[in-house]
Amino acid sequence: MTVSREQRAEMRAASEVSHTTKRPTVSALERILHSPIELLDHGLLRVIDYMGDDTSIVQAARVSYGIGTKNVRNDRGLIRYLMRHRHTTPFEMCEIKFHVKLPVFVARQWIRHRTANVNEYSARYSILDREFYIPKQEHLATQSKSNRQGRGVVLEGEEAERVLQILKDDAFTAYDHYVEMLNEDEDGEPLDPNRDGLARELARMNLPLNIYTQWYWKTDLHNLFHFLSLRADPHAQYEIRVYAEYMLEIVEKWVPIACEAFRDYRLGAVTFSSQVVEALRKSLDIGAFEAALDGLSEREVTEVLTILKTQ
Amino acid sequence: MTVSREQRAEMRAASEVSHTTKRPTVSALERILHSPIELLDHGLLRVIDYMGDDTSIVQAARVSYGIGTKNVRNDRGLIRYLMRHRHTTPFEMCEIKFHVKLPVFVARQWIRHRTANVNEYSARYSILDREFYIPKQEHLATQSKSNRQGRGVVLEGEEAERVLQILKDDAFTAYDHYVEMLNEDEDGEPLDPNRDGLARELARMNLPLNIYTQWYWKTDLHNLFHFLSLRADPHAQYEIRVYAEYMLEIVEKWVPIACEAFRDYRLGAVTFSSQVVEALRKSLDIGAFEAALDGLSEREVTEVLTILKTQ
Amino acid sequence: MTVSREQRAEMRAASEVSHTTKRPTVSALERILHSPIELLDHGLLRVIDYMGDDTSIVQAARVSYGIGTKNVRNDRGLIRYLMRHRHTTPFEMCEIKFHVKLPVFVARQWIRHRTANVNEYSARYSILDREFYIPKQEHLATQSKSNRQGRGVVLEGEEAERVLQILKDDAFTAYDHYVEMLNEDEDGEPLDPNRDGLARELARMNLPLNIYTQWYWKTDLHNLFHFLSLRADPHAQYEIRVYAEYMLEIVEKWVPIACEAFRDYRLGAVTFSSQVVEALRKSLDIGAFEAALDGLSEREVTEVLTILKTQ
Amino acid sequence: MTVSREQRAEMRAASEVSHTTKRPTVSALERILHSPIELLDHGLLRVIDYMGDDTSIVQAARVSYGIGTKNVRNDRGLIRYLMRHRHTTPFEMCEIKFHVKLPVFVARQWIRHRTANVNEYSARYSILDREFYIPKQEHLATQSKSNRQGRGVVLEGEEAERVLQILKDDAFTAYDHYVEMLNEDEDGEPLDPNRDGLARELARMNLPLNIYTQWYWKTDLHNLFHFLSLRADPHAQYEIRVYAEYMLEIVEKWVPIACEAFRDYRLGAVTFSSQVVEALRKSLDIGAFEAALDGLSEREVTEVLTILKTQ
Repeated sequence: MTVSREQRAEMRAASEVSHTTKRPTVSALERILHSPIELLDHGLLRVIDYMGDDTSIVQAARVSYGIGTKNVRNDRGLIRYLMRHRHTTPFEMCEIKFHVKLPVFVARQWIRHRTANVNEYSARYSILDREFYIPKQEHLATQSKSNRQGRGVVLEGEEAERVLQILKDDAFTAYDHYVEMLNEDEDGEPLDPNRDGLARELARMNLPLNIYTQWYWKTDLHNLFHFLSLRADPHAQYEIRVYAEYMLEIVEKWVPIACEAFRDYRLGAVTFSSQVVEALRKSLDIGAFEAALDGLSEREVTEVLTILKTQ
Repeated sequence: MTVSREQRAEMRAASEVSHTTKRPTVSALERILHSPIELLDHGLLRVIDYMGDDTSIVQAARVSYGIGTKNVRNDRGLIRYLMRHRHTTPFEMCEIKFHVKLPVFVARQWIRHRTANVNEYSARYSILDREFYIPKQEHLATQSKSNRQGRGVVLEGEEAERVLQILKDDAFTAYDHYVEMLNEDEDGEPLDPNRDGLARELARMNLPLNIYTQWYWKTDLHNLFHFLSLRADPHAQYEIRVYAEYMLEIVEKWVPIACEAFRDYRLGAVTFSSQVVEALRKSLDIGAFEAALDGLSEREVTEVLTILKTQ
Repeated sequence: MTVSREQRAEMRAASEVSHTTKRPTVSALERILHSPIELLDHGLLRVIDYMGDDTSIVQAARVSYGIGTKNVRNDRGLIRYLMRHRHTTPFEMCEIKFHVKLPVFVARQWIRHRTANVNEYSARYSILDREFYIPKQEHLATQSKSNRQGRGVVLEGEEAERVLQILKDDAFTAYDHYVEMLNEDEDGEPLDPNRDGLARELARMNLPLNIYTQWYWKTDLHNLFHFLSLRADPHAQYEIRVYAEYMLEIVEKWVPIACEAFRDYRLGAVTFSSQVVEALRKSLDIGAFEAALDGLSEREVTEVLTILKTQ
Repeated sequence: MTVSREQRAEMRAASEVSHTTKRPTVSALERILHSPIELLDHGLLRVIDYMGDDTSIVQAARVSYGIGTKNVRNDRGLIRYLMRHRHTTPFEMCEIKFHVKLPVFVARQWIRHRTANVNEYSARYSILDREFYIPKQEHLATQSKSNRQGRGVVLEGEEAERVLQILKDDAFTAYDHYVEMLNEDEDGEPLDPNRDGLARELARMNLPLNIYTQWYWKTDLHNLFHFLSLRADPHAQYEIRVYAEYMLEIVEKWVPIACEAFRDYRLGAVTFSSQVVEALRKSLDIGAFEAALDGLSEREVTEVLTILKTQ
């Protein structure tokens, strides 16, 4: 289940292909299409296919709003308007498909995002490879004292060595026993011809949660943004955040305008409760605030001031 | 398709029933269960069934976070924390089912919310009733000059009368022709025994978008909140907003704590872009702001100040 | 909202474009990409974009089943196996986007398919065009006597004329009143400068269900097959079936192997209850039946006989 | 994460509660509400809540088909008709919520059913219990020779003992190391006050796939039937099938008529391709077949014969 020689050949072959198409095509994304990005120790992320670009979002919005959108001066303005006002359906008109290799405990978080299509390697059918995520020493964080799902300082010295030793030993012992129980070599031939092997679907239960699996994962841009808003967030577990951050870079190549709007209005945005907004209304020096808004479009300034002026 | 005598009898019968159950039960909601709320001119909204209450949200969150949630002092604190931090899955553990009678043009907006279960009256199978939404004069708004989907001032006098006349005349003419094309009375008997009637699935195409339809609509609390955040919003069309506002009152009876949190952190909340947050950081007098936050929990104050203090 | 001159220009421009891409590309589909198919009297169907081809299904299945699929001799065999055994996820790896112009009553059936992305023309923002579906006389079917949602014989002569007259008159009257209430011409200028127009979101309620709307509709191949199995079925209403049948032809160009499998194992297939299967077991002459299976793959023959042999 | 003393107390308390309600209530299901069914070695399944009963399906169908359903003689006939003709939406009107304790490798298959609501115990927040699925010797099946995902004969004697020894040893070693890395006791106190513990989200990666997790899982009856059609099937892995079979028994108590229809028209039904149906048409002795259909409703016999008579 590693990226096999066969898969590497496929990736290379796919990269060398060149078709002509009348579909919207993004050359910055084409350049990395099929090519694997390596991450963690054995992880992999690559774009297999995509549909649409920034103009596809605009095109869909114009179908919805008809002549109503003629007023918006340009595509960037329209996309930013859609993002700001959570008009999400035009973003669903773009689609992307990834090939991902990832540890099972990361896959378990990832799969919770339900609006996606998935084909995962099946350990009922096939034999898993001897590949486990062993963190780098610098990622061996302690439990945070203040945050139940957070990380604290980093383990060092003997303590770190002990953890790494445990993770490696237990993984490889488990794997050796997996192979022993299967009694199969890579070609499905019995290792010991005098005994039967345990069914694959049973033997795999001995493997730890840091073993790598892989899947194809396909989703639309709106749902991908939702995924990224949760998984590229500092509260996400480091091991899934790494994937999310690379995906965000890919999205930037693919739909640069939508991605910029996402960073401004979602990823870097903050939602304040009605009580906090009320407190802002009471305490804000509107003049100073308006001066600090320098650089925003006139439309946005008006929207923001309407909310924050004492009513 | 009006609420037929049969349906009224069913509603009354359902209201008089009394079972014993070990399920979470909300007495404020039981009191209105099955009873129709009348809205618009022929509209109807009633709760048919529900699952769960505020404690169901807490119970689900405690399964997720295990002993990790023991620290949160009480149910209200936990529910507000979940809402504030968009931990949405525990809200999916509550479910509600409505019976709704509504104009077709409202149904067309409503059905865009995909994560719901629907059974709608079928005009392929059955005959629609002579019931149309005719707005009250006070709702005959003009097109807004500033907002392409908004309403402006209200039509009055002759102009209003003319509009109401058109709406009524066209609706009733269309309905009379519908019946003529069907050539069927209410019991399916031919009106004119010497000719055939047009298929129901065809004849209905003559009816205008303000004819009433009805359906059962079932969704979970998280998706209902999403629906309400869009449809109880001032930007929603008045005719669907009326339904949303009654639904919000129902939700208040059903899950009062979650509903309060929804009002504070979603409905009344505001999302500011990273640029606006930056402008707030620069221009805000933190001392004055903190004073204005009076009344918020210590935890929330800390969260907000962490965001807004110059970094 | 007709295909405007602007849209036609866009379609033409899109058709003339030629990019290079490393994505799977289907030349038979490229040939019709962007080009409108006309159907009904003012309807339109065209493919805007697509992702994947038959090999994408195979590729996804091979990720799932790993070396387990090496045994299947070829792509066609694998795709047929997947379809036969309802291994549906690999079909979700292909995606297609349509631009559709369709009467509102058809749109109301169509939208019930929830696993799809939609951007519909909004009559809150913009003005609908004067285009209505008026059936051809040969489609003016009567209500079936035996089937509550079916059609019977066709209306002819005066009866047919009367129906067509009603549909046309009511539609155009409704539209004239729509324009009068709006008090707007195509460019949004008031027709009568001395009075206000009714809001668009209100005026549209006067329009009948046979008015045309349009949308972009995007879905994956698995969900498209589900759509087609219901809507290309003889029980579907003629007016939506026309769309489904053209879509099936498009699917045939796009993924010919999957489409053939769909016709054999879904569209033309029959599901028998356990009682009927038991009756087949009791009454079938297995020898004669096996002879009649001539042409099926050995694997399928074995599968079928295993089920039908007396057990 | 075992069923803790606290949870047991909650279950007992919930079982002793008695409310009055106007909701549809199923006494056979009430009797087992909240009570855990034990399965596998440490597994658990219990119903936490439910919405609707057989009559809710009928009620929803009658809204859809209006007077059109008056012809169907009774509720059972209608429900069977809906199931036979895949009119699935009325089944979505019933909802059920389970509390499930299950091994992680089973949870990974289960979660692939996307149309459901889930709250799972989080090993980022909390510490997992020392509970692993160790199969009974009689379930230690070998890999099937003929079916890549199937099981063959059962391991016995020394071979079986060796497998069980491996599974137990590796699980407990992994768990001991998990605790050592965490350096926390059950109350979150450090075991060794002189060193830090590894973050929970990291330490858990050492645990094998047969460790138990638990979740709340809520879905509607239509999607539950889909789940059961795949997971109560002989091709499903034994360890998930056990859950599905108990769930099927629960569904039988809950909606006995729908469950019977599901068994007849889905679980025990067979789908034949168009080629196979053609072969049946050619080779079937219709007289003998019709005689064997004895017991079916007249309506079904007609439906079946219409399909199978030479056309």
